[in-house]
Amino acid sequence: MNPVVVVHGGGADNVSEDRKERVRRGIVRAATVGYSILQEGASAVDAVEGAVTVLEDDPEFNAGCGSVLNVNGEVEMDASIMDGKDLSAGAVSAVRCVANPIKLARLVMEKTPHCFLTNQGAEKFAAAMGIPEIPGEKLVTERNKKHLEKEKREKGAQKSDCKKNLGTVGAVALDRKGNVAYATSTGGIINKMVGRVGDTPCIGSGGYADNDIGAISTTGHGESILKVNLARLTLFHIEQGKTLEEAADLSLGYMKSRLKGLGGLILVSKTGDWVVKWTSASMPWAAAKDGKLHSGIDLDETTVTDLP
Amino acid sequence: MNPVVVVHGGGADNVSEDRKERVRRGIVRAATVGYSILQEGASAVDAVEGAVTVLEDDPEFNAGCGSVLNVNGEVEMDASIMDGKDLSAGAVSAVRCVANPIKLARLVMEKTPHCFLTNQGAEKFAAAMGIPEIPGEKLVTERNKKHLEKEKREKGAQKSDCKKNLGTVGAVALDRKGNVAYATSTGGIINKMVGRVGDTPCIGSGGYADNDIGAISTTGHGESILKVNLARLTLFHIEQGKTLEEAADLSLGYMKSRLKGLGGLILVSKTGDWVVKWTSASMPWAAAKDGKLHSGIDLDETTVTDLP
Repeated sequence: MNPVVVVHGGGADNVSEDRKERVRRGIVRAATVGYSILQEGASAVDAVEGAVTVLEDDPEFNAGCGSVLNVNGEVEMDASIMDGKDLSAGAVSAVRCVANPIKLARLVMEKTPHCFLTNQGAEKFAAAMGIPEIPGEKLVTERNKKHLEKEKREKGAQKSDCKKNLGTVGAVALDRKGNVAYATSTGGIINKMVGRVGDTPCIGSGGYADNDIGAISTTGHGESILKVNLARLTLFHIEQGKTLEEAADLSLGYMKSRLKGLGGLILVSKTGDWVVKWTSASMPWAAAKDGKLHSGIDLDETTVTDLP
Repeated sequence: MNPVVVVHGGGADNVSEDRKERVRRGIVRAATVGYSILQEGASAVDAVEGAVTVLEDDPEFNAGCGSVLNVNGEVEMDASIMDGKDLSAGAVSAVRCVANPIKLARLVMEKTPHCFLTNQGAEKFAAAMGIPEIPGEKLVTERNKKHLEKEKREKGAQKSDCKKNLGTVGAVALDRKGNVAYATSTGGIINKMVGRVGDTPCIGSGGYADNDIGAISTTGHGESILKVNLARLTLFHIEQGKTLEEAADLSLGYMKSRLKGLGGLILVSKTGDWVVKWTSASMPWAAAKDGKLHSGIDLDETTVTDLP
C-alpha cells in the first residue's frame, strides 16, 4: 500500500495575507513530517500523532501553543486519536498546562482501559505518565490575547459564532500495512465558557477511523459538528457507495442546511484515495502521496510540488 | 400523534432476585411519570428529563444517587439530552455534587451557546444556575461502597470489564406534536479512573434524537459504544429502510462481533413504533403507549398492564 497523509489547519473565516505564508509553511511541515514517518515504515497512528504534534507546537494554529482563549483568558484543549485497525481510541477534553494534548490522548488509548479522560482527571493522568506540566501562559500568544479582547468588545453585536473561530488541526493517514488513523486537536472556540467541550474529543464527530472504510478528521463549528456526528456521517455515505467527494459534499451540505454550521474535513479511504473539502471561507491543508505534496488555503488554489 | 415514552435502567450482568422488585418498581415509576408529562401536553424533552430524574433519584440505578464509585470512591457522573426538533443538545461529563446531572445537561442545552460542559466548568455553571451543591457522600450508597471493595479485591482476576458494570439510565419519547427526544445519565463504570468519560455524554454514542428518524438511548460498555457510535449507527440502519428491530439487532450485533462489547438500547421512531433490545444478560425497561404499560427485566419476560 502506498502511504498517504493529509493534514488540515482548521476551517477559518479567512487567513490574513500576513499570516498566509507562515500558515502555509506550518501545514506543509506537518504533512512532510507525517509522510516521512510513514516512509520509515511506522504506523498510521504514529504519522497522525507526529503531524498533529507539529501543528500543536506551531503558534499559528488553534491547538497546543496558539490555542484560542476561554472567557477567563486561559487555554483549555481537546484532542482525540483513533486506530482504524481495531477502533481503539483515546481522547482528552478541557486539559490545561500540557504542550501536546494529542500525545496525552494517545496515552489514554494505549495505557488505560478507557477511551476518554477529562479535565482534572486527564491532568492527573498526564502527571502519572511523566508528562511535564507547563505554565498555562506558555500556550498563550499575544495574537490570541488581542483576539479575545476584540471578541469581548464586539460580543454584543455578535449574533452567532457559527461562522468564526472554526480552528482545529487534524491529520489522517494510511500506512503501508493498510491501517488508517486520525488525530484531531484544538483549543476550541474563543471566549468559550470554562469547561466547554466541542466535537474534537468526541469519536464520530471530531474524527473517525476504520480500516474497513477510511479515516476522517473534521474542523469547524464544534457544536454543529457534534449535533450531526460529521465524521461518522461522512463515512456512512461512503459505505453507501458514494465517492469521497460526494460523501464530503453531502455531510457538509447537510450540516450547513440543517444547522447553518460551517466546517471542513479531510478524508483518506482504505484504498488511499483522499479528499479535502470545506464550507468555511478557507482551510489550510496539505496532502502527501507518491512523492508529491499537494497543498492549499483558499478554494481556488492548489499547489503541487515534489516531496524531498 | 399518540405519545410514547420508553425508559431503561441499564444493561446488566444480572439483577439479583432481592433487587428485582425494587428495580421493577423504579423503572415503572419512571415510565409512568414520563407518560403523564406527555399526557399533559408537555414536550418530549420534558418527558425524558422527568423520567430520567426519577431514575437518578432512585438509589437502585447507576445514575445520580446510586452511581457507581470511581477508583477514589467518589461519584462522577455523565449525562446528555437532545431535542429531535432542531438537534439541539446538552451534555455534562465528570460532574460531582449535583443531584440531577440530566437537569444540568438540559440547562447547558438551553442556557449556553455550547452543547457540552465538563468537570470543574460544568460545576461552576451549575452554581451560576442556582443548582444546589450537595455533599458528594449523599450520592454514595452502601451497596456501591461494597461493590467497589469487591471490585478492587477481584481486580487481579478480571480480564475485561466489557461484560459487567454496564449500568446507565435513559429515556426516549415522542410527544403529541411529533417531536422526539432522548436523555441518558450514568455514574459510569465502577473503579474507573478519575475523569473517565464514557459514551453517555457523547451525542451519537449515548443517544441521538432527530424528528426525521426517531430517538434512541443506549446503555452498556461505554468504551465499546463510543467506538461504534452505537446510537447514530442504529438510526442509520433505520434510514436505510431497516425495521427498528432489525436496526437494533444489526448495531448491537456489530458492537459484539467487532469489539466483544455488550449493551442495550431503547428506540422510538418518528411514527411512534418502539423497540427495546439488549445483548447483556438483562436490561430493566418499561414503555408506555395508548394507555398500556409494557415492562420487563430478563429476555423471556414482558408484562403488560393498564396505565392509571
